[in-house]
Amino acid sequence: MEPSIALHTDKYQINMMYAHWKMGTHNRKAVFEMYFRKLPFGSGYAVFAGLQRIVDYITELRFTDTELAYLQQQEERYEPAFIEELRRFRFSGSIDSVPEGTLVFPNEPLVRVEGRIMEAQLVETAILNMANYQTLIATKASRIRQAAGDDTLLEFGTRRAQEMDAAVWGARAAYVAGFHATSNMRAGLLFGIPAKGTHAHAWVQAHQSELEAFERYAEALPDGVTLLVDTYDTLGSGVPHAIEVARQLRAKGKELQGIRLDSGDLAILSKEARRMLDEAGFPGVRIVASNDLDEHIIMELKAQGAAIDTWGVGTQLITAADQPSLGGVYKLAAIDRGDGYEPVIKLSGNLDKVTNPGAKTISRLIDTKTGYALGDYMALREEAALEGEPLQRIDPAHPYVRTAVSVYRAEPLLQPVFRSGELVAKLPELEDIRCYHLAQLCLFRPQHLRKLHPEPYPVWFSQQLWQLKTEMIQRVQAVQGDKKNG
Amino acid sequence: MEPSIALHTDKYQINMMYAHWKMGTHNRKAVFEMYFRKLPFGSGYAVFAGLQRIVDYITELRFTDTELAYLQQQEERYEPAFIEELRRFRFSGSIDSVPEGTLVFPNEPLVRVEGRIMEAQLVETAILNMANYQTLIATKASRIRQAAGDDTLLEFGTRRAQEMDAAVWGARAAYVAGFHATSNMRAGLLFGIPAKGTHAHAWVQAHQSELEAFERYAEALPDGVTLLVDTYDTLGSGVPHAIEVARQLRAKGKELQGIRLDSGDLAILSKEARRMLDEAGFPGVRIVASNDLDEHIIMELKAQGAAIDTWGVGTQLITAADQPSLGGVYKLAAIDRGDGYEPVIKLSGNLDKVTNPGAKTISRLIDTKTGYALGDYMALREEAALEGEPLQRIDPAHPYVRTAVSVYRAEPLLQPVFRSGELVAKLPELEDIRCYHLAQLCLFRPQHLRKLHPEPYPVWFSQQLWQLKTEMIQRVQAVQGDKKNG
Repeated sequence: MEPSIALHTDKYQINMMYAHWKMGTHNRKAVFEMYFRKLPFGSGYAVFAGLQRIVDYITELRFTDTELAYLQQQEERYEPAFIEELRRFRFSGSIDSVPEGTLVFPNEPLVRVEGRIMEAQLVETAILNMANYQTLIATKASRIRQAAGDDTLLEFGTRRAQEMDAAVWGARAAYVAGFHATSNMRAGLLFGIPAKGTHAHAWVQAHQSELEAFERYAEALPDGVTLLVDTYDTLGSGVPHAIEVARQLRAKGKELQGIRLDSGDLAILSKEARRMLDEAGFPGVRIVASNDLDEHIIMELKAQGAAIDTWGVGTQLITAADQPSLGGVYKLAAIDRGDGYEPVIKLSGNLDKVTNPGAKTISRLIDTKTGYALGDYMALREEAALEGEPLQRIDPAHPYVRTAVSVYRAEPLLQPVFRSGELVAKLPELEDIRCYHLAQLCLFRPQHLRKLHPEPYPVWFSQQLWQLKTEMIQRVQAVQGDKKNG
Repeated sequence: MEPSIALHTDKYQINMMYAHWKMGTHNRKAVFEMYFRKLPFGSGYAVFAGLQRIVDYITELRFTDTELAYLQQQEERYEPAFIEELRRFRFSGSIDSVPEGTLVFPNEPLVRVEGRIMEAQLVETAILNMANYQTLIATKASRIRQAAGDDTLLEFGTRRAQEMDAAVWGARAAYVAGFHATSNMRAGLLFGIPAKGTHAHAWVQAHQSELEAFERYAEALPDGVTLLVDTYDTLGSGVPHAIEVARQLRAKGKELQGIRLDSGDLAILSKEARRMLDEAGFPGVRIVASNDLDEHIIMELKAQGAAIDTWGVGTQLITAADQPSLGGVYKLAAIDRGDGYEPVIKLSGNLDKVTNPGAKTISRLIDTKTGYALGDYMALREEAALEGEPLQRIDPAHPYVRTAVSVYRAEPLLQPVFRSGELVAKLPELEDIRCYHLAQLCLFRPQHLRKLHPEPYPVWFSQQLWQLKTEMIQRVQAVQGDKKNG
């Protein structure tokens, strides 16, 4: 009964498609690029995610009778021949994308769409919706991973996620960035992410006493029991009852797996619970903590010596609470009006929002001696591929400083995904994306990865791109100046 | 190919269902209540939404082969007979809910679920996920509505929404709370919300000049043209070109509908654009503004005399950016262990988190003289219905002050939705929910509705509920005291 994803778009996309079609310009080729301007959370890097979802969307993109009938009712009164054009619609363009799990930086093209302007407009909204959210959550999760070190991380956010899709795609993004499991069963089924769960306070309250509740839970699920100990009094009753059940389990040849703390001072409670468990002969029982955790609180708790082995992270991760949107944009870079591609630029009162003209490539320059990434290098697509030759690089924040780089190897970040509407990439398995993300982290010096005040990682312009941008700005300003004077 | 919504739940729900089933307690009747503890955004009220989605979910709730096969692979090794129990699973309980669009307040039960504990646990996660998000967005939208007065409000947030479901259900929640249209076509199709859209900067950039772009757009869609005027220079080129096209349209017997400002100082630009349009003889052309708007910025712009008729609100609304989660919870209130319902309570180190025991009702007391709501009144379900008799009311923040209220009529807020698994409510049409929300606003004195420092609206306890809570806290504490002393 759910209508297809073809209408997962803004109406102005349909209106622009229609206007292009009416004017006969709908088949003009255009290049759009998706990028963000600013890193979230004060982070030194972001983690790209969303490509799998985008590929599914592009592959399924069709207008069915339901959507076409709906379009015919609109106040714009689209012509019937346009509706028929949509009925035949298939995405026939090309898409290049950075692989999921890649560390990415402001102003780099992450997804590049090349196709008929009609189709390239249609897919803008969905690409932004999917890549913005998933990249945001993967970035937040990667930061939490850095704070938690080698501890186990569980994604627990479904009840606070912004509706159903956010819960599963957020769980996947968290897994990409190093989380170990999710509580969301649907995410487990859809993506093969390990699903984990203990019990709630309601389990304890449903019984006459906490001890009875623990005993029954351990009886029902004797392998891998984790008991929630804060329903009444964490250290006064919860932990002692858990120890009692741990003894009962051991008598049957089993071991209590863990206890969970969900309120109170997690540093003090975890240390005291650890001491009680150790003294009772249960040093192997793990301590799981939850309750509005994020990278800052985890780091604080670790600094206080909290005895926590596993972190259950919910709301703060799944909503990216400290900055719940990425702000990625999708901008026209070049258009072919009949004489080949022309680069285009958008000026703005806000100079940070001026776009970079032309279809672009982005390469990661790796120092061949240290193995560390030196910086990323954005160039026009028509420039020759980098073969390790000494390179002039321009820092757009300080364009008067021009330095050369040599002794590097260049890794292109954008990979072909669709060519003329055909899926040409074999997308990696989720486990491989996860490994790839870890490998990506190893490429970067720690100063770019730290939580607070990271050192900015450079994204350089090629000389040719810089020159094109400068010239185009001057040209547009000259035209505007003429108009004001004339 | 998408698995059913049955696994839109946390694993611990399945584990608790299994443990109850193993112990033979899964058919015990229980009452759970969903509520939130704190209003978002410093608001004086929240707007309940999410019921339509919850009803769809409960109605469709089935485990298919796909989900059952997945459950059989879990490390918990659920017994095959449990899997068969799930195969037969239908929701057979009762649900009462506050209607969508109702103004609601902290600690009031918004959704009450009564059923076998197994089913009441299963549905917790989905109910919270849906009601938390939609209530949050309806609340944010209602606040924006208050700031915008009678101006037109458009929901533009899809590209920044937290994935696909948030875009459509957020658009619906915004419409419930008084928005007039959405840019999201799928929300238009699913819910019948008017869909609106203009064109993007890419339309202008795709043409040789801004004027050509405007002319062609007006030619393709001559009725209801709104032109985006900030691609190059709002007042220097955008508005003059729009005026030129307005003249061309008028020559053909048409009128330009509007211009849209998407950057820069919206107060100054809108006033100057208004002056230019008026002087050129186009006082009817509307000015639409967008660019990270929220209730605060809209109020600021209106205070500066901005000449804006229509507000396009995106990111800040659809993500509830200043507080992206509501924090609603779902707590066990009573359970029948064989001798009828017993109320239950959850204590907590944080005293604000102590639950209110027993299945409860909530009534809105309306002053029969003024027509204004006096306060809400929470009582135990078994208490007699209010018939307008003088009432002792207890403010839980100041329980030593007991005042009586008379000359009121009481409106029960919780309405029957499901009875023994059957849908017994005919849910209102979306347009009716929208009207109902407006009527709700009229019930409340302005001091409860204002954006900044609203006066708290009282939620009173009945004497019986207050007494039960006090006694239960003392009883639990006595047991714990015994334990510590013993």
